Amino acid sequence: MQTAVLQAEQKQTTPITRGVLDELFDELFPIFRSITGPGYRRSMEVLSRYMPLETERVPSGTEVFDWAVPPEWRLYSARLTGPDGTVLADADRSNLTVVNYSEAIDRRLSLQELLPHLYGAPALPEAIPYVTSYYKRRWGFCLPQTEIDRLPEGTYHAYIDAEFVQGFVELGHCTLPGENDSEIVLSSYICHPSLANNELSGPLALLLLYDRIARWPRRKFTYRFIVNPETIGSICYLHRHGGHLRRKMVAGMVLTCLGGPCERLSYQLSRRSNSLFDLTVLDVANEGRIPIDIRAFDPADGSDERQYCSPGFNLPMSQMARTVYGRYREYHTSFDDKAFMDIDVVYRSAEQIETILQRAEISGAYRNLKPFCEPQLGKLSLMPSINSPDTKDSGERRAARRILTILNFSDGNTTMIEIAKRCGCSVVELEPYIAELERAALLTVA
Amino acid sequence: MQTAVLQAEQKQTTPITRGVLDELFDELFPIFRSITGPGYRRSMEVLSRYMPLETERVPSGTEVFDWAVPPEWRLYSARLTGPDGTVLADADRSNLTVVNYSEAIDRRLSLQELLPHLYGAPALPEAIPYVTSYYKRRWGFCLPQTEIDRLPEGTYHAYIDAEFVQGFVELGHCTLPGENDSEIVLSSYICHPSLANNELSGPLALLLLYDRIARWPRRKFTYRFIVNPETIGSICYLHRHGGHLRRKMVAGMVLTCLGGPCERLSYQLSRRSNSLFDLTVLDVANEGRIPIDIRAFDPADGSDERQYCSPGFNLPMSQMARTVYGRYREYHTSFDDKAFMDIDVVYRSAEQIETILQRAEISGAYRNLKPFCEPQLGKLSLMPSINSPDTKDSGERRAARRILTILNFSDGNTTMIEIAKRCGCSVVELEPYIAELERAALLTVA
Amino acid sequence: MQTAVLQAEQKQTTPITRGVLDELFDELFPIFRSITGPGYRRSMEVLSRYMPLETERVPSGTEVFDWAVPPEWRLYSARLTGPDGTVLADADRSNLTVVNYSEAIDRRLSLQELLPHLYGAPALPEAIPYVTSYYKRRWGFCLPQTEIDRLPEGTYHAYIDAEFVQGFVELGHCTLPGENDSEIVLSSYICHPSLANNELSGPLALLLLYDRIARWPRRKFTYRFIVNPETIGSICYLHRHGGHLRRKMVAGMVLTCLGGPCERLSYQLSRRSNSLFDLTVLDVANEGRIPIDIRAFDPADGSDERQYCSPGFNLPMSQMARTVYGRYREYHTSFDDKAFMDIDVVYRSAEQIETILQRAEISGAYRNLKPFCEPQLGKLSLMPSINSPDTKDSGERRAARRILTILNFSDGNTTMIEIAKRCGCSVVELEPYIAELERAALLTVA
Repeated sequence: MQTAVLQAEQKQTTPITRGVLDELFDELFPIFRSITGPGYRRSMEVLSRYMPLETERVPSGTEVFDWAVPPEWRLYSARLTGPDGTVLADADRSNLTVVNYSEAIDRRLSLQELLPHLYGAPALPEAIPYVTSYYKRRWGFCLPQTEIDRLPEGTYHAYIDAEFVQGFVELGHCTLPGENDSEIVLSSYICHPSLANNELSGPLALLLLYDRIARWPRRKFTYRFIVNPETIGSICYLHRHGGHLRRKMVAGMVLTCLGGPCERLSYQLSRRSNSLFDLTVLDVANEGRIPIDIRAFDPADGSDERQYCSPGFNLPMSQMARTVYGRYREYHTSFDDKAFMDIDVVYRSAEQIETILQRAEISGAYRNLKPFCEPQLGKLSLMPSINSPDTKDSGERRAARRILTILNFSDGNTTMIEIAKRCGCSVVELEPYIAELERAALLTVA
Repeated sequence: MQTAVLQAEQKQTTPITRGVLDELFDELFPIFRSITGPGYRRSMEVLSRYMPLETERVPSGTEVFDWAVPPEWRLYSARLTGPDGTVLADADRSNLTVVNYSEAIDRRLSLQELLPHLYGAPALPEAIPYVTSYYKRRWGFCLPQTEIDRLPEGTYHAYIDAEFVQGFVELGHCTLPGENDSEIVLSSYICHPSLANNELSGPLALLLLYDRIARWPRRKFTYRFIVNPETIGSICYLHRHGGHLRRKMVAGMVLTCLGGPCERLSYQLSRRSNSLFDLTVLDVANEGRIPIDIRAFDPADGSDERQYCSPGFNLPMSQMARTVYGRYREYHTSFDDKAFMDIDVVYRSAEQIETILQRAEISGAYRNLKPFCEPQLGKLSLMPSINSPDTKDSGERRAARRILTILNFSDGNTTMIEIAKRCGCSVVELEPYIAELERAALLTVA
Repeated sequence: MQTAVLQAEQKQTTPITRGVLDELFDELFPIFRSITGPGYRRSMEVLSRYMPLETERVPSGTEVFDWAVPPEWRLYSARLTGPDGTVLADADRSNLTVVNYSEAIDRRLSLQELLPHLYGAPALPEAIPYVTSYYKRRWGFCLPQTEIDRLPEGTYHAYIDAEFVQGFVELGHCTLPGENDSEIVLSSYICHPSLANNELSGPLALLLLYDRIARWPRRKFTYRFIVNPETIGSICYLHRHGGHLRRKMVAGMVLTCLGGPCERLSYQLSRRSNSLFDLTVLDVANEGRIPIDIRAFDPADGSDERQYCSPGFNLPMSQMARTVYGRYREYHTSFDDKAFMDIDVVYRSAEQIETILQRAEISGAYRNLKPFCEPQLGKLSLMPSINSPDTKDSGERRAARRILTILNFSDGNTTMIEIAKRCGCSVVELEPYIAELERAALLTVA
């Protein structure tokens, strides 16, 4: 039995705890990351301690669809000095203070010359914003808007020691095999330095989910876990693996912004809006036990699902968040930190997502393996073998009703969610019957 | 002309009257029936006097899909004697008093040992219930619950002289050919001994419908009439004829429970819920002349449509009833008798079903046989040949409007019900135009 | 660049003005027309001065689908004289006074014999009605109902000198090529003598539209302009060109009854009800700037779209009118004249239709030409190349949102109308982005 094999594979290691996530956060947060380079690779090594990521490297300059993989950015030091010699910005003090992918500069300039190279966050004037310019050469410093506003006239010294070298974008992924090779994809990204909700909450939740799913006694689907730098990483990943995903992918979720103060999860539907996850999350949300808001698919704002859901691929990739990018003031600033994010919330998010994944395991369409007439269920003691008044309203009779309804509508197209609606119950209440019919070789995932 | 041939075939016999149905009921009711055996065969011979049933035999032990045809059950006698020698149950007194398909027994036992073999109908304590155990060997007696409750301690004698022999399930069917070979299927079952509404009402209505349809001046469709033992008979029938039905069957109805006190017919939609009958019955029900309740398809409760509508076949089989199985207390007890059922109601049910079948004859989709541009209707005196103010609001003009609307939408997909809605009238009002266009070779059933 | 070629082709002639339409009306109105014959041909020559119509001739007797092309009708003179010698009707005084396609007659008859050959318009008793009998030989005179009612007993002289000769139905069409060879069809008819709204308003609007569209700097679609005699002309046209239209036609409109006093245009949906014009007109009507009523497709009343929308063709042909045939008392009488119609209203109708055609140019479905992942829009300065707080709410950011939304949903099926709804704006507001993406070879009409 395949199930037995999977059980034998179950991990004997200790489960990942809140404490482990907390330590991991503290280890990952200070690393100076970008979409390439040593900080990125160090971050991936940290994650790999808990998830057996295989990595693939796509060299700088490689054409991937309409894009070219950028060179690797190496920042050695960056410092902005004021007219009076005060150091106004120093990359050693803040990972955010230099525009990510800044080119080298060593110039003395007037305040007027400098200002176009300074970035503040007017809506949150005390915070240092996070600014990137990966595909157009620029240089710049990020400062609190209050400090920018106070800068006196005079001569400033902008010094950035950085270079662009031939490097690569690194992709990471691993899978947990299941009873069939249809795949559930869970993806997150790592590339923003020193941001919490909109950076580390995603890969930390992914690690915890890997750990949990690896311990499940049974997996119907194969689970694929992906970590990339955002956007360019997904584009490279789809360039290499898009064909495979088009054949195998049943549903997927990008994990992002899973900490933060919001009470409710926030789920963005896939472009198709009818993926297994879409249907499952809507079902779970309707029940109300896990509070979830639903967002429509938005191709103009979001994370890696924009690439997965491009019209040429149109993969069933949704997105799960909580305190959503662009909807909170601290987003993309130095105030998106551990205090804002909360490890406990990330942990809870991952647990809620695990519940949803378990629901998705049973919520899809099945095929009745003996579809011509009813099977002789009496043989299997699933049905009363006697037809008498006693069996009319009994639990045995209700079981029979549910089994017959499952078998009749398991035509490969009707989801178990729809069948449960016909039965007037939750998918969860059908789970024992599904399992019994699978064991009896009468039912299989479609 | 095919129509002429059909008219020539019309029966010269006298029509079946209420009186004939009444006599047939009295002849069929006392026969000791099961799903196999001499009582079943005798019943089929009686029905064959009014409907030219061809029979087919499927031997015991034959594998049909997931089932095996059971052996034939022969019951010679069955008697339960009390401690004081009173005969408590005797198959010669009631056809229901022995569990159908009981194995042989000749044993003296205490009340405690006996009780698991006794079946009452707690909800109707004076009635003898109808109990079967076709696929698991058991023995038992059926008694009024009040008698069971009064049984004293002591030694009882359970005596059943029965045997299981190599036999067969017998299937019966016949057809009335129509102008095309697409088939309308009407099916009922015969296997319950001495039950009225939930047994004889079905085949009696079927007989009357056969008689009526045979006398129609014209049949667009071919009509197939089927009588089997319930469930196993349909499974055998589909094993032999399922492929044919998948190619030819346009719509079908299982007839059951057509007597009884309910004022309204009760129609169960096919699994597809869009068969010709489904659409026709909804149209008729909306008009309100024939009172009909609509039930959703239910794979977990019902009659032979459960087999026809299994997902591998998914045939357009609906079900027509009146006082529905499981929804009346007398169901499957000795109180489901002629007094409960009422021959007049069965007769009325069949007449209402005939009206529905006549509607279905014209309600489906048609094909315009000259679909490129409008036909030159002036040639056929269907249209005014002059365009003048006089023709604007005349009946001739309305006829032309209806004819043009019928022709335009008869694209093989749009039903005449939909076309009638566009014309703002009933399908019945379109019938003369349809007939005229068929005669002019401009229109045919799709 | 194909666009440049089209610009070079632009007409250097002076635009058609209201004055030109007015003169054309006066030239066309008095011509004695029918579906064949010299009056029809003279009318086509007049139209050809402003639109390079190629003509095709289908000889009398040719079988076209279910029809035969009628002989050409030549009317030399027609006169009805009363008992006292008064000339009651004379074709030289009114084009409508003889039933169109009357056979020759030279007979003296009593009032009783005459009356079945006289046609009045009871609803408008002072008007001469327009009566035709193309496919059944008749003769008759049309008179004001008041005059008919006053006729005294006595001997009348009916004299019609006419003959039927081997002739032809003449079809006229021309095209304006566009960037692709998918075709927009604009069709009108010319065959009624001396009627205004329900005759000349259509071809006059068509002329103006030809003139306007020829001057557009760019045409995405190819435009086909058709003028035929009504009904038989379209049937002949479809017999010759129906296959071509089935391959190329994207949308079409029959132009009829575009003058008259109604404030609102009146659009009849195509049989499919989802053509590019159907969707565009619904979108424009919802916005409310051009007041338009929507009529359902009606196969039983209308103009040439009845042939285009016959089920064998089912072409996406709609119809645009204003004061609709059959809905005004003057319809098909001598009172449907220039005073009733109003050249200014015809002019305005054509201008409104031009606006709708311009909307249709951009409203359909497109294909993203780089559909795998997002294109690197930074390369094209369509997108901000820096991700900083400043770009969050800027116009640049909104442009980027719209561009990404257009690209994601341009999958060849989703219309720009639907995409505009997702963007929360009008199609018109998306036009600059569409144009920019077309120039960048990222987008093309589907």
